[in-house]
Amino acid sequence: MSDRTYGIVGTGALGGYYGGLLARSGCEVHFLAHSDVDHIRDNGLKVESKAGDFHLSDVSVFGTPEEMPACDVVIVALKTTQNHLLAELLPPIVKADGCVLVLQNGLDIEQEATAVVGADRTLSGCCFLCSNKVGPGHIRHLDYGRIEFGEFLGNGVSERVGDIGQDFASATISVTPSPDIRLTRWRKLVWNIPFNGLSVALDASTADIMECFDGTEMAKTLMEEVVASAAAEGYSIDESFVEKMLEDTRKMVPYDSSMRVDHKLGRPMEVEAIFGNPVRAAAAAGHDARRMEMLYRHLKFVDARNVRNLK
Amino acid sequence: MSDRTYGIVGTGALGGYYGGLLARSGCEVHFLAHSDVDHIRDNGLKVESKAGDFHLSDVSVFGTPEEMPACDVVIVALKTTQNHLLAELLPPIVKADGCVLVLQNGLDIEQEATAVVGADRTLSGCCFLCSNKVGPGHIRHLDYGRIEFGEFLGNGVSERVGDIGQDFASATISVTPSPDIRLTRWRKLVWNIPFNGLSVALDASTADIMECFDGTEMAKTLMEEVVASAAAEGYSIDESFVEKMLEDTRKMVPYDSSMRVDHKLGRPMEVEAIFGNPVRAAAAAGHDARRMEMLYRHLKFVDARNVRNLK
Repeated sequence: MSDRTYGIVGTGALGGYYGGLLARSGCEVHFLAHSDVDHIRDNGLKVESKAGDFHLSDVSVFGTPEEMPACDVVIVALKTTQNHLLAELLPPIVKADGCVLVLQNGLDIEQEATAVVGADRTLSGCCFLCSNKVGPGHIRHLDYGRIEFGEFLGNGVSERVGDIGQDFASATISVTPSPDIRLTRWRKLVWNIPFNGLSVALDASTADIMECFDGTEMAKTLMEEVVASAAAEGYSIDESFVEKMLEDTRKMVPYDSSMRVDHKLGRPMEVEAIFGNPVRAAAAAGHDARRMEMLYRHLKFVDARNVRNLK
Repeated sequence: MSDRTYGIVGTGALGGYYGGLLARSGCEVHFLAHSDVDHIRDNGLKVESKAGDFHLSDVSVFGTPEEMPACDVVIVALKTTQNHLLAELLPPIVKADGCVLVLQNGLDIEQEATAVVGADRTLSGCCFLCSNKVGPGHIRHLDYGRIEFGEFLGNGVSERVGDIGQDFASATISVTPSPDIRLTRWRKLVWNIPFNGLSVALDASTADIMECFDGTEMAKTLMEEVVASAAAEGYSIDESFVEKMLEDTRKMVPYDSSMRVDHKLGRPMEVEAIFGNPVRAAAAAGHDARRMEMLYRHLKFVDARNVRNLK
């Protein structure tokens, strides 16, 4: 158990799960929550998991950043659609020599964090996690959970990343240090771009997509465009990775991507993080990712209609 | 009034309308119908049109091709999804020196006709028509109606095309002879590919698409791919045509494309005629039409699900 203190911004499916595990392991963890503050303060945090259910009765939870103690490591566990809030949320809760670890989907999603603490104090990671918030202060962890993270500035694995990784490992969180997080993000996009996007565009589960020849071809050709986009930036992803991702998906239980879940619930989707930013990055690197762009525009169309329908 | 006899295969929104006009003008017209045969025989054919309603009480209509007299000009007015029927329907109803005029959407949709009567006896045309069948033997013509047609083999405007065009004109059908029907078809696809496809993929009317920046961009970039696909085959379409099509669509009343109508009614969509054949033609000519292909696969996915749901 280290003496590093952790702050969790967003106590949902991801922040509630990882923060809960860190707190259970004995770390000092402070949670910033929104709608669930009172419930968690009164009833604690409940995590159901196939690795073992647990309940934290005494949780340090706050409704505003001003009330919360400044922490050594602040984990951003919001959806990227909430990142505009970070300019206000982060300054009070990061120690002067602390750092921010952004655990979000997509590409180029660290700007709001680097704007507050600087690129050299920003860490970035991808989570391979199936988890849902099923009620106030109530998380249901379904499967997986590994975090791959590293310095935003890359350049190998820093001591800081190693230390935080130790805390995670002590909390039974599987970690892989990433010497180049941008490569990690491109690799994750190889799955996220086709399956988040097509699940909404086609209104289909992973199994629906993989059971149809044309669904599988769409997924495959999109994956190839992600690989080509990464290559245009100088990031090499082996072609066999595409086949492996398809094969893994074929074997998965029918699964609704996070974007499909958001869509079904009428929530804003992470369209810019997962689609807009990669399409723009590819274009800037000279690659015309036309299939990705089609899907990007499709999702923006659907997202705008969702937002209108909610009004 | 000529002594050419006309056969109409498919007495729906298109065949009922044009065949009705030809019959009204005094031409000898025989209709091949499916579900509506008895109704039309008993009650005639009713056409509502802003150009003037009319009712034909004595209609020569048949339920099987064997009963029907052979005609000089047989007009194919089925959906292309029914073209597999032509091998049986056409032989009894085309005179030995007669010809077949295929009035259907899409590209490379003449094969079933040429297989029966030969390429040199096949004519081909595109209709710019808004018309619906609203009940048995009951057609509602909404707007437009021009036919652009020519020899399947191209090579300018034949005498035959001129003669049939005269009959159409006498029947108040606006006609434009096409010296190269494949160019005409590519030009029509500039509109049909984006607006038939996106209306189903996005579940949107033409107005919904044009009111959204991303919808309009999808339509525009798809149009550019159609123009590039045609160019790969040696067919030149001016770039200004794309802007004109967008502008015309912007001014249209909100309209459901024929594919969206089919989709809403759970009917098979003309996916191969309007998407599959153009994508394959572009690929054969060396152009990789990736956006068109994405939309093609999307529609095949949706079409297969529709068919499954009907079972």
